[in-house]
Amino acid sequence: MAAPRDRETRKLDTLNMLTTPAIDIWVATAAAPSEPHLVPLSLAWIDERVVIALEASSPTARNLSASGVARLAVGRTRDVVMIDAVLDRTVDVAADEALGAAYVAQADWDPRGLTGYVFLVLRPVRIQAWRESNEIPGRTLMRDGAWLV
Amino acid sequence: MAAPRDRETRKLDTLNMLTTPAIDIWVATAAAPSEPHLVPLSLAWIDERVVIALEASSPTARNLSASGVARLAVGRTRDVVMIDAVLDRTVDVAADEALGAAYVAQADWDPRGLTGYVFLVLRPVRIQAWRESNEIPGRTLMRDGAWLV
Repeated sequence: MAAPRDRETRKLDTLNMLTTPAIDIWVATAAAPSEPHLVPLSLAWIDERVVIALEASSPTARNLSASGVARLAVGRTRDVVMIDAVLDRTVDVAADEALGAAYVAQADWDPRGLTGYVFLVLRPVRIQAWRESNEIPGRTLMRDGAWLV
Repeated sequence: MAAPRDRETRKLDTLNMLTTPAIDIWVATAAAPSEPHLVPLSLAWIDERVVIALEASSPTARNLSASGVARLAVGRTRDVVMIDAVLDRTVDVAADEALGAAYVAQADWDPRGLTGYVFLVLRPVRIQAWRESNEIPGRTLMRDGAWLV
């Protein structure tokens, strides 16, 4: 097992991961305790927000509209960034030119021409990053929406 | 983009993935619509069941005990196996010798000596597998607990 990274390194690695071109994010939402949902989606990191694009009628979009909350994971299970996030705003894919351009600049597909698709802009509330069990201490890098490091 | 795999190949790849030594699984559960939870855990595939080991007091174990339902993902976002599963049984880590031995044979850690840890035995109800968007058609390999292929 490698030595644990210090927190400054973890933040830098986290931001590098979140801005990686064509990277996907796991998005967990729920309609009810007995209806957890989980899907992989393309991610863009724009102005400290996680931006995803999906059909407004999909379970993930409907769950987020109703609950306002998602739990997100980026990376591999042994080099992970976990994000608890809240829904900031929902934007039709054709409605915000700057947002659309920024999304397409990082993601490897372009949803802007698709009917019924929306951007969901998610605001991180808590961010944790760890690799192996020796990085569990100190894993919280953001709390209540504020970076701790 | 590679040509889509046929369904027999996808089932074979799925079983190979589920039996990979030291592989992790994403486990999504929920306490409420506004409390989705998601964690990476070690996986063992034993007698057509997903077996995970964790603290009985953890959010994932508590959510599963209450709701009986989890949504699971194995692999990477562009080579994924998605599993909707229900809780079959909860077993103290010291209580079932055969189960413990099978778990340790695949996972790369041994929870059997740990106080407060349990095995959760999850029964797949639906299994889907896809790589890229051209594999969305035909992605369902198991439905209502029965293999379709």
